[in-house]
Amino acid sequence: MKGKADRNIRRLVSGLWTVFEICCRQNMKMNVLVINCGSSSLKYQLINSDSEAVLAKGLCERIGIDGRLVYQKTGCDKEITEAAMPTHKEAIQMVLDALTNDKTGAIGSLKEVNAVGHRVVHGGEKFAKSVVITDEVISAVEECNDLAPLHNPANLIGIRVCSELMPGVPQVAVFDTAFHQTMPAKAYLYGLPIEYYKNYKVRRYGFHGTSHSFVSKRAVEFLGLDKDNSKVIVCHLGNGSSISAVVNGECVDTTMGLTPLEGVVMGTRSGNIDPAIMEFIAKKENLDIAGMMNVLNKKSGLLGLSGGLSSDFRDLNDAAQSGNEDAANAIDVLCYGIAKFVGGYVAAMNGVDAIVFTAGIGENAIPVREKVVSYLGYLGVTLDKEANGVRGEEIVISTPDSKVKVAVIPTNEELAICRETVALV
Amino acid sequence: MKGKADRNIRRLVSGLWTVFEICCRQNMKMNVLVINCGSSSLKYQLINSDSEAVLAKGLCERIGIDGRLVYQKTGCDKEITEAAMPTHKEAIQMVLDALTNDKTGAIGSLKEVNAVGHRVVHGGEKFAKSVVITDEVISAVEECNDLAPLHNPANLIGIRVCSELMPGVPQVAVFDTAFHQTMPAKAYLYGLPIEYYKNYKVRRYGFHGTSHSFVSKRAVEFLGLDKDNSKVIVCHLGNGSSISAVVNGECVDTTMGLTPLEGVVMGTRSGNIDPAIMEFIAKKENLDIAGMMNVLNKKSGLLGLSGGLSSDFRDLNDAAQSGNEDAANAIDVLCYGIAKFVGGYVAAMNGVDAIVFTAGIGENAIPVREKVVSYLGYLGVTLDKEANGVRGEEIVISTPDSKVKVAVIPTNEELAICRETVALV
Repeated sequence: MKGKADRNIRRLVSGLWTVFEICCRQNMKMNVLVINCGSSSLKYQLINSDSEAVLAKGLCERIGIDGRLVYQKTGCDKEITEAAMPTHKEAIQMVLDALTNDKTGAIGSLKEVNAVGHRVVHGGEKFAKSVVITDEVISAVEECNDLAPLHNPANLIGIRVCSELMPGVPQVAVFDTAFHQTMPAKAYLYGLPIEYYKNYKVRRYGFHGTSHSFVSKRAVEFLGLDKDNSKVIVCHLGNGSSISAVVNGECVDTTMGLTPLEGVVMGTRSGNIDPAIMEFIAKKENLDIAGMMNVLNKKSGLLGLSGGLSSDFRDLNDAAQSGNEDAANAIDVLCYGIAKFVGGYVAAMNGVDAIVFTAGIGENAIPVREKVVSYLGYLGVTLDKEANGVRGEEIVISTPDSKVKVAVIPTNEELAICRETVALV
Repeated sequence: MKGKADRNIRRLVSGLWTVFEICCRQNMKMNVLVINCGSSSLKYQLINSDSEAVLAKGLCERIGIDGRLVYQKTGCDKEITEAAMPTHKEAIQMVLDALTNDKTGAIGSLKEVNAVGHRVVHGGEKFAKSVVITDEVISAVEECNDLAPLHNPANLIGIRVCSELMPGVPQVAVFDTAFHQTMPAKAYLYGLPIEYYKNYKVRRYGFHGTSHSFVSKRAVEFLGLDKDNSKVIVCHLGNGSSISAVVNGECVDTTMGLTPLEGVVMGTRSGNIDPAIMEFIAKKENLDIAGMMNVLNKKSGLLGLSGGLSSDFRDLNDAAQSGNEDAANAIDVLCYGIAKFVGGYVAAMNGVDAIVFTAGIGENAIPVREKVVSYLGYLGVTLDKEANGVRGEEIVISTPDSKVKVAVIPTNEELAICRETVALV
């Protein structure tokens, strides 16, 4: 009996301590360092979670090659420092030094960094939400390396270096794939031998999840939808593009798959093709699978369709207006493909309340939005052309009588990572 | 002047002769031999073009191996003959002998075969409609061999043997790809380097064109649509499956691509996958591109998803009802995928008047039609469950108040080839 009473007292104390901690945090001005670590580069932002203001941001480039730090305190000029960065450790140390620098530092000391939020590309089936990083989490992320061999190992380096340089500061992993883990089997299974899924976990994962989550949630607020009865399609169109279908806040389908190659035509990525094209072209061009993957990832998409002109929509739009037929076709293929995916997701959800455009092209390419919406008259969608003339702003671009709301909502993955981090630490 | 008068007289005579020939043909009872020639097999039907009745049909199997002829005169029992068929020549000779056999022949002599219609798989960009076969046509079909290396050479063998065995009998080539040649560039271009299209003609071609053409035309008649103002989606769902979008009788998009591998999940074919899966699986399973193509064409689709259980929908349906989860998932993946393509084509056409199901699964799989239609409520589609209970019959399966008509229309590719042939000879 005494043992039981002791346990209950311990539980009570522990519970009270947790409540105390939460109260402290809520009153605390939290600064979150958001890190997106690549194999030879690293982007960062220091965000204050109360005001959600960016205190400073920048990037490290050419890590392991020569090294270059870009640092900008909000309101100040950009500082560029060429300096040796043999490893990510030196790179992150330079970021921390810049953040706490006497003159242009955004904070007085590292004690003012209360948490670190890391973008992690692939959480496989292990992570359906963000998590506080522990040794077990690191092991589980390592087990997903296979699925993102270029990205996950780099993300893990960032995590390890931050743990070393900022011991005791809680770190959170925010996964690109997590938001899509709610997809049902009919959406994530490919028409492949099922043992590839069972043995190797070959399935649709989806990417840009942090953006799709952020934008779809914001769409519900901004457009005044009923969050428990809402069907939203998010078109995240940037250099990499993906579209997602979100029912009541949960992702039910998305265009990217096992990797970020699948789906719509992108800057340099092909998106969907007849898989048999790989064999056909490999023979013609004397390429192996790795050579074909290089073509599909780096020489295809808008760049390839435009005959190597550009992967940037703005360049293609200019060229098309000057009569370049390949550039005009590239834009048509892009917009038509987006419209077909949107139409497919309307069927997937058996209806739609809102269609939202985000990311570089989605926020800024007025003619892309206009062309995509031009296919959707059957849904009772009507575009407000004047509103659609705006770039990079949160705005409704459908007319008031449009049966489906269409909007532009700028994405902010760093802020989303900051929010996820604050919610967990 | 005399020369010019002579030429005019010759033109007049030639014109009158043409009119005479056309009149004769219109009054003639035409028999068309329809040939679908594969590399080691051959299917045939002898059809009377007036009554459109099949006089006899059958197939040759194991050509070049041992040889087996199946022959059935309409109204009689099936005859099976095991006999040496070293080449297609012996095979077609045996078919002609069977057709003119004293006892069970469908016709008295070869003079009663008025024309031969050949299915030709790939017409590339050269053939947008059926053509009377000439030496130039044969050369042009040969130039498409590259695009269908297994099929076109076999089709050409059939054409050459028929010319040899039935000299003077007009022959017509009916292409699987021709109907889809009206697709615009935005539908047929892939997001690949444009030189692959310009140099190698890598593009979407589409297949099952004879069926899509036949069924979409029949849909307009049967459903009383305005042929000059109609938007029809044809779901040709068989062991191979493809979906097409048809506006005013012209194909504007289809799911199969450079090859018949692309699009929806099929019996043993994967349909669309993330192209990067090929590299991932090739490494895991130690396969080269050819090995991967074999998996994607022969071990994937419903067969693969069901863990090797069956490529036949009926088997999967039985298994799913007995609690087999993989089989149930395979059916869900199939129906969900079809619904997404249908939804995408509604966007492609900015609306739809009719959705038609055809071919083995389309005509017979009641639960597939029901599941697909269940996604389309947002279009104002309502299913007549009783009508949908019918198999293999031409029937409207939507309710009278459904905003989009849904129907089953059995396909008949041989009859379509017969009609195309008669129209040209």
